[in-house]
Amino acid sequence: MIVARRYGARRLAAYVGRPLALLLGWDVAVVLAYRVLRPHWGGHWGGLGALPMSMMGSSLAIFLVLRNNVAYARWWEARTLWGGVVGGSRRLARQSRLFLAPADAQALVRLQVAFAHALRCHLRRLDPWAAVTPFLPAGLEPALRARTNLPDAILSAMADRLAALARAGALDSVALAAFEDTLREIGSAQGGCERIRNTPLPRQYDAFPALFVQLFCVLLPLSMVDDLAWLTPLGSSVVGFVFLALDTIGRRLEDPFENDSHDVPLDALARTIEIDLRQGIGETGLPPPLLPVDGVLW
Amino acid sequence: MIVARRYGARRLAAYVGRPLALLLGWDVAVVLAYRVLRPHWGGHWGGLGALPMSMMGSSLAIFLVLRNNVAYARWWEARTLWGGVVGGSRRLARQSRLFLAPADAQALVRLQVAFAHALRCHLRRLDPWAAVTPFLPAGLEPALRARTNLPDAILSAMADRLAALARAGALDSVALAAFEDTLREIGSAQGGCERIRNTPLPRQYDAFPALFVQLFCVLLPLSMVDDLAWLTPLGSSVVGFVFLALDTIGRRLEDPFENDSHDVPLDALARTIEIDLRQGIGETGLPPPLLPVDGVLW
Amino acid sequence: MIVARRYGARRLAAYVGRPLALLLGWDVAVVLAYRVLRPHWGGHWGGLGALPMSMMGSSLAIFLVLRNNVAYARWWEARTLWGGVVGGSRRLARQSRLFLAPADAQALVRLQVAFAHALRCHLRRLDPWAAVTPFLPAGLEPALRARTNLPDAILSAMADRLAALARAGALDSVALAAFEDTLREIGSAQGGCERIRNTPLPRQYDAFPALFVQLFCVLLPLSMVDDLAWLTPLGSSVVGFVFLALDTIGRRLEDPFENDSHDVPLDALARTIEIDLRQGIGETGLPPPLLPVDGVLW
Amino acid sequence: MIVARRYGARRLAAYVGRPLALLLGWDVAVVLAYRVLRPHWGGHWGGLGALPMSMMGSSLAIFLVLRNNVAYARWWEARTLWGGVVGGSRRLARQSRLFLAPADAQALVRLQVAFAHALRCHLRRLDPWAAVTPFLPAGLEPALRARTNLPDAILSAMADRLAALARAGALDSVALAAFEDTLREIGSAQGGCERIRNTPLPRQYDAFPALFVQLFCVLLPLSMVDDLAWLTPLGSSVVGFVFLALDTIGRRLEDPFENDSHDVPLDALARTIEIDLRQGIGETGLPPPLLPVDGVLW
Amino acid sequence: MIVARRYGARRLAAYVGRPLALLLGWDVAVVLAYRVLRPHWGGHWGGLGALPMSMMGSSLAIFLVLRNNVAYARWWEARTLWGGVVGGSRRLARQSRLFLAPADAQALVRLQVAFAHALRCHLRRLDPWAAVTPFLPAGLEPALRARTNLPDAILSAMADRLAALARAGALDSVALAAFEDTLREIGSAQGGCERIRNTPLPRQYDAFPALFVQLFCVLLPLSMVDDLAWLTPLGSSVVGFVFLALDTIGRRLEDPFENDSHDVPLDALARTIEIDLRQGIGETGLPPPLLPVDGVLW
Repeated sequence: MIVARRYGARRLAAYVGRPLALLLGWDVAVVLAYRVLRPHWGGHWGGLGALPMSMMGSSLAIFLVLRNNVAYARWWEARTLWGGVVGGSRRLARQSRLFLAPADAQALVRLQVAFAHALRCHLRRLDPWAAVTPFLPAGLEPALRARTNLPDAILSAMADRLAALARAGALDSVALAAFEDTLREIGSAQGGCERIRNTPLPRQYDAFPALFVQLFCVLLPLSMVDDLAWLTPLGSSVVGFVFLALDTIGRRLEDPFENDSHDVPLDALARTIEIDLRQGIGETGLPPPLLPVDGVLW
Repeated sequence: MIVARRYGARRLAAYVGRPLALLLGWDVAVVLAYRVLRPHWGGHWGGLGALPMSMMGSSLAIFLVLRNNVAYARWWEARTLWGGVVGGSRRLARQSRLFLAPADAQALVRLQVAFAHALRCHLRRLDPWAAVTPFLPAGLEPALRARTNLPDAILSAMADRLAALARAGALDSVALAAFEDTLREIGSAQGGCERIRNTPLPRQYDAFPALFVQLFCVLLPLSMVDDLAWLTPLGSSVVGFVFLALDTIGRRLEDPFENDSHDVPLDALARTIEIDLRQGIGETGLPPPLLPVDGVLW
Repeated sequence: MIVARRYGARRLAAYVGRPLALLLGWDVAVVLAYRVLRPHWGGHWGGLGALPMSMMGSSLAIFLVLRNNVAYARWWEARTLWGGVVGGSRRLARQSRLFLAPADAQALVRLQVAFAHALRCHLRRLDPWAAVTPFLPAGLEPALRARTNLPDAILSAMADRLAALARAGALDSVALAAFEDTLREIGSAQGGCERIRNTPLPRQYDAFPALFVQLFCVLLPLSMVDDLAWLTPLGSSVVGFVFLALDTIGRRLEDPFENDSHDVPLDALARTIEIDLRQGIGETGLPPPLLPVDGVLW
Repeated sequence: MIVARRYGARRLAAYVGRPLALLLGWDVAVVLAYRVLRPHWGGHWGGLGALPMSMMGSSLAIFLVLRNNVAYARWWEARTLWGGVVGGSRRLARQSRLFLAPADAQALVRLQVAFAHALRCHLRRLDPWAAVTPFLPAGLEPALRARTNLPDAILSAMADRLAALARAGALDSVALAAFEDTLREIGSAQGGCERIRNTPLPRQYDAFPALFVQLFCVLLPLSMVDDLAWLTPLGSSVVGFVFLALDTIGRRLEDPFENDSHDVPLDALARTIEIDLRQGIGETGLPPPLLPVDGVLW
Repeated sequence: MIVARRYGARRLAAYVGRPLALLLGWDVAVVLAYRVLRPHWGGHWGGLGALPMSMMGSSLAIFLVLRNNVAYARWWEARTLWGGVVGGSRRLARQSRLFLAPADAQALVRLQVAFAHALRCHLRRLDPWAAVTPFLPAGLEPALRARTNLPDAILSAMADRLAALARAGALDSVALAAFEDTLREIGSAQGGCERIRNTPLPRQYDAFPALFVQLFCVLLPLSMVDDLAWLTPLGSSVVGFVFLALDTIGRRLEDPFENDSHDVPLDALARTIEIDLRQGIGETGLPPPLLPVDGVLW
């Protein structure tokens, strides 16, 4: 997640630099061709006229802006779901204080830290074991390795541990049901994140805007050259810049778990969970909160 | 659900190929007629003028884009509801670990796998028995066959089994209430899916956009031919392409349970549930996760 | 609810036929007057110009489309609330299997069928007794007739029955609380439906669009006649058709409990509840599901 | 809340009559000045041109329409929250039937009627005591008068009464928790209403639309006078009417608890609660439901 | 939060005064240059033409307005989440009346007042101790100082206190679970506030609108000077004013916890909680509710 307040030229160039340069080249080519060829040809080229371009432009703008809002909604939902992971983790820690003996609480809370790291790696398709293993009780890892979905398997392991405590008489069924509700909350946030990762925005919302914008940019100088003459590259670039940027803004937000600079900051959130939970069970020597690197929080 | 990143020419053609070809033919016919007839006729045809077409075009664009957002919202709600089925299934499996003996847990979890397949077939109007029967306990099938709504009947069978355990003293009423809440969650996701399948988008949101776009495309070359002359087919096709595509994008997302390539991928989701749940009760030799076929996940 | 896939000429005519015919008449009158009077008058009429009409047109289009989305949201919320009635009914039936003896379950489930029919009639302001009485236990009807709000009174009767079972020791307080939560869910869906029925869309969202569209249509030929001459009726009708249709689309969806063809299909939904619940308690000889009549599901 | 189906000339005039008359006067002044002065001056006034006005107009229309949707969302949320008060009240009455002896139920239900009237007066900043006192048990009023927030104080009094019943052994903790959940539901609806009443729409959403519309109306005739000449007042009034109306529609819905004709009908809703709840505890001689007065339900 | 009904010239100037003055200067410079240079140059400058500017303008308007809606949604969500803190605090106080002895209730309620002040300071990055310490029991402060997240640590301290009461037999597990649900509700509102504070609107939604508006304003007089001549500064300023204001409106709402005049009024809300809760436990001599200072409620 980019947190830098200023959006420098470098980021801007990364956004729309290349297509904009291409458009400018095309603009210049069109003007030159028009100026060179027209006198020889003698005919009149009225351009494409204002009507088709303005109809295409306004339809496209509405489509792009609303597509972007949908992409933003996905991104914000992803962030909110991770807020649910943070909230569920704190709740589990609080419930452990309420219902469990300190040693049992500690083991459960460490499993929840493992869950946070496992979910982070699961969503970003990274190897989880280096981050997860330190928080697992001895002997659990092999069983987890046999499961396809590691975060869900950790939740199952927490359920097993709670069931054992209940069988040992350390928890009554009301407390067990309260813990179960917390596991439900966490599991449901996990499911929501998987939904967003596995279900891309319908491909039409992705392919058609790109195609329309390219088509629009190709036609832009053709429609302006008769009116604007040598100013065509200016007029066309400015309009093209807006449309290219609108197309890119949404495209970058669509997929919030792709391990790039527009991601929801899973590393920082998992670290926050780790610090809050481990402080709560009295551990010290914890890692510091993650800070933005070069304006990006990962 | 189409997951292929690239949207090739074949998919594009399937989208708007035919109406676009028709439009192009009509454009050419209009230009030819205009060029041939006008000199004989001697009169002047000012076209339909920019005002009606631009008013119609901008109204239509806003309508189409917002209709598409409504269609997308249906599709995303359908996907979210199936996320609820996945989450509820995992929750039920977790609760079984918390509250039940392993054998009872296993039977309940297998019934839940049966539910997932039954719901998938129910929504797509497919015959469910081949997929469902392997997960049913002996003797249950005839009772289920007597019920109209198979997924709901399976939830009732799960309730019967839990009630029997409670009567046998294996479950207290708090645990029973926790299970009941999970069945509620799953049943409510089922109800939401049925709502989307049985309640089409109001027909006006479907019929009028199609009619408007057809009318608009018929008028397009008539309004441009005086200005654009031989460029009319280009201008008209480009604008028509945008409107035809906008109309189609929404139409394909409206109904997410129609067994076509724009469906929510029920097969893959039911398979995920089957794998997660059966792994959790220690079964092996499971089927692999479903992969996209030709860029489409079913 | 209209479910017919095709939207024939008859439905279209019912939609905007009359105002469109009026507009066409007005268009022709304007053209004739202009053609006949202008030569005598000698002056020039520049029409209303493009600026006022295009500003009015685009504002109006945005307003209409977003008003329609609000109307659709009401309609969809009404459908979702009835989905909640279906889900709550099934949940109550499931809870009866979990917590009650068969005879008690049967009586409670029949009361819930009565509730569904009572709510349907309550929302559509129909006499409920013919549909409700068969499902009431003997002697309950007089007490219910004394209450203003019949569906709520049936929920109270269910609570009384559950309280009697609890006092008799057949239900513990956890089960009672679970039933209470289901009654809450059902009652809250009822309250939502009453809210939509009793609270029309703010009258301004209804009156101003109609007024604006009428004004707009009156001005349409006046603004076009100088440009389009004999084509004025065509240009004006096409644009007027879009605006009249946009106005009507929302107006028909605003009130989903008005007993007309755009209603949420309460008859069919109540019938579904009746079948699902009565099958669940082993009754046979049930009525079949309701089918669309002439493309409309009631 | 205005419920009259027809929106007569009187209501229309109250809406935008005055500013529209001012605009018409300004239009006429501009035309006259233009006609009188131009010949003397000899110069040419091209008007403000179409570009600035159409850019301003379309931006303004989008802004106004979406601002109105936000205002409507506030209004509808307020109505929905009162739906929650109605639902919570019925739920409390149902719980009283389930868990309490008739005399205790009666006292609690009467306190809930007091709550509904107290909340109504609290939101509209009216003196509550005349409406509330008849439903309070003897001796409670002085304690309530000492509290700043009367509705919340009544909920506390209900909690005290329930706690006393629990200490006396008439309620177990499961039933107490169920009642507590209902108080939470009601208190949360109260909090939502207070949020809407105390947090106006951000002032910018209110001040800028008004300012923009005024500026726009002042410029309207200036931009049209050269084109439309004597028709300027017509063109300008029609466009001005749309924008003035759009501005006013939202402004009237923004604040739903202001004791004016666009309010959520708190009187009618509190009366509904009173009737439903008092009928449920067998009281008779109740006041009738409130009916609209002059097309307005209060 | 600005509550003043009137939006005076001072506030307006603070909004868009500076960029508007710059734009006006630029407008004048363009007109002068055009008038002075053109006769010498002899050529014709057709301006940038209407097409690029109107396409840019309408795209930009849609983008700005929808960006503003997203910013408003963040602001309103922040306000709603604090409504959740208010509701959760009252609920905790009500639960204390239901389940605890007066002395225990008092201590818990005072901790909740401390929580409200701690959360307020935490979100605004202010030092919390002066506001929080008076409400802490003796000896708790050092433990809290060791934790990174003070509000969460206070919730943990409340959990510890409740756990101690439960171990002492003063609370059964049902009551404990009810309290736990309230802590969940409060913690989840806290988590939502932290999410909004720590996750800015995606930087593209902030940087591009600003850049587009600046570019648009620079081009405005260039596109108008040929048409409007000496009226260019008027036309350009009016349009520029609308776009500059639209850009600023959203920008000010984006971040609701920045300690400036557009903040959600945390001071006033925390004070409300303090008064309601302390009155409820019978304390007197409370501070008065906060009033707006110079039209701003903090």
